[in-house]
Amino acid sequence: MRMPGGQTVVLDRRSAILAGLFASFAAATARSDGGQSASAQQDPQHDMSLVERMPGAHGNETIVLVAYPGFTLLDLVGPQYMLANLLGATVHIAAKSLDPVHSDMGPALVPTTTFADCPTEVTLVMLPGGTSGTLAAMQDAGLLAFLRDRARHARWMASVCTGSLVLGAAGLLRGYRATSHWVARDLLADFGAMPVNERVVFDRDRVTGAGVTAGLDFGLSMVQKLRGREYAEAVQLLGEYDPAPPLHAGSLDEAPHETVAMLEQMLAGFVDKAKSIAAGATR
Amino acid sequence: MRMPGGQTVVLDRRSAILAGLFASFAAATARSDGGQSASAQQDPQHDMSLVERMPGAHGNETIVLVAYPGFTLLDLVGPQYMLANLLGATVHIAAKSLDPVHSDMGPALVPTTTFADCPTEVTLVMLPGGTSGTLAAMQDAGLLAFLRDRARHARWMASVCTGSLVLGAAGLLRGYRATSHWVARDLLADFGAMPVNERVVFDRDRVTGAGVTAGLDFGLSMVQKLRGREYAEAVQLLGEYDPAPPLHAGSLDEAPHETVAMLEQMLAGFVDKAKSIAAGATR
Repeated sequence: MRMPGGQTVVLDRRSAILAGLFASFAAATARSDGGQSASAQQDPQHDMSLVERMPGAHGNETIVLVAYPGFTLLDLVGPQYMLANLLGATVHIAAKSLDPVHSDMGPALVPTTTFADCPTEVTLVMLPGGTSGTLAAMQDAGLLAFLRDRARHARWMASVCTGSLVLGAAGLLRGYRATSHWVARDLLADFGAMPVNERVVFDRDRVTGAGVTAGLDFGLSMVQKLRGREYAEAVQLLGEYDPAPPLHAGSLDEAPHETVAMLEQMLAGFVDKAKSIAAGATR
Repeated sequence: MRMPGGQTVVLDRRSAILAGLFASFAAATARSDGGQSASAQQDPQHDMSLVERMPGAHGNETIVLVAYPGFTLLDLVGPQYMLANLLGATVHIAAKSLDPVHSDMGPALVPTTTFADCPTEVTLVMLPGGTSGTLAAMQDAGLLAFLRDRARHARWMASVCTGSLVLGAAGLLRGYRATSHWVARDLLADFGAMPVNERVVFDRDRVTGAGVTAGLDFGLSMVQKLRGREYAEAVQLLGEYDPAPPLHAGSLDEAPHETVAMLEQMLAGFVDKAKSIAAGATR
């Protein structure tokens, strides 16, 4: 349903929004690598002539994706894809130092800033999850201090997967509804949170996503929150986010019971360790 | 439905498969970073005592994910998550040199091998997509030579998103059914392929995925192909791949017409350039 004569209005707004969207590639590239790369150049394949027609489609968010040794790469990169498409936003990858950070399955990502140099006034800080690397992060005083400090200034503190346990260990989920990877969700209660079985949970200035791939839904939800539905629809179409898993075992409801039981058994050590960290953290 | 007495059998098989699955974290980490990282260590949180009970759950695939300047990070990392969970597989990130490779939106990934050093006998080589970086890759003689050489030895040559245009430019899709990002799909005909509107297209020794996020469906499909349904279900549950996009604009069928029209307009320069490269490549 459109307002009378609304189609033209919609088209104009979309034109500007979408032109802005593509300009964001170049902008994000230029900003987030600090100009260190030859790839940080305007993309001649993107017609950006319409951008100036609607400056309202631009933003100036400061987004911080936190990398720590042993993080799950997809937890970070799912949101990164969606958020880097925000025209005018600056997307940082923050870590202890500028050295490449190895993810839990090997590949290393290069940070763009350090905890020390990361801006203080931030829109969003997002923690990815992992397993043993995440347990270490939950006990990393420097990382926790960074999170507590930025939480005083951030519009949202967020996580994907077991990243919520790190937010919990920093004391940042007390009294909040929150979620996590299914294996860790109930553990959030140990950090004073109220575990919720939802894909993405918004509660005031906290946003938490479920396991790994929920980062895509978290990221797209944030884009919608920050720029509205039309912009987010364009990002979704650009990423052809029309998922079609070849199997149907992605949730506790759908997976075979034996698969659930075995994953629970395999991850029992992780859960136990996280519980003992919680006991220490809340003592 | 189970065979009589089948539950124990199923449990045993699942036990081994899933134990193997978790062992793969450590294995993949140890292998793919060449032992350069302190994170490459056995994970004490994973009980792997059941692994030895079913060596059949192990594999020894050599998987090569290709990084080139300007690639879309999620195109590579979606499949990487799924494939790195293959117990015993070695997952390489291959590039021209070992220098970090900047993706189209800024973040840089560290390669684990070079085109020169990459193994010859490979199971799977996968090309991510992008926009202007992909156009450059389509004209990069060194990259195309690498792909043509490995194609003579690989079980599968694969792509996600506009990565299929690079396979096309290398002459590796002639006579094959294939797909790409929706904006580039029809272009595949210019490289002698038969464009198909499917999320993931298997045709003999070629596998192509649709845009960006289709990499997750491609990766999980490959896991199922390589290790069977039960193993793939475990990977899916581990990644909580139960997608729930907050909007429904991820395909040409679902997105508002204006959004489609504008993205087509914005990407027209990319399409034109790719077409002219195809004309040169097939001339």
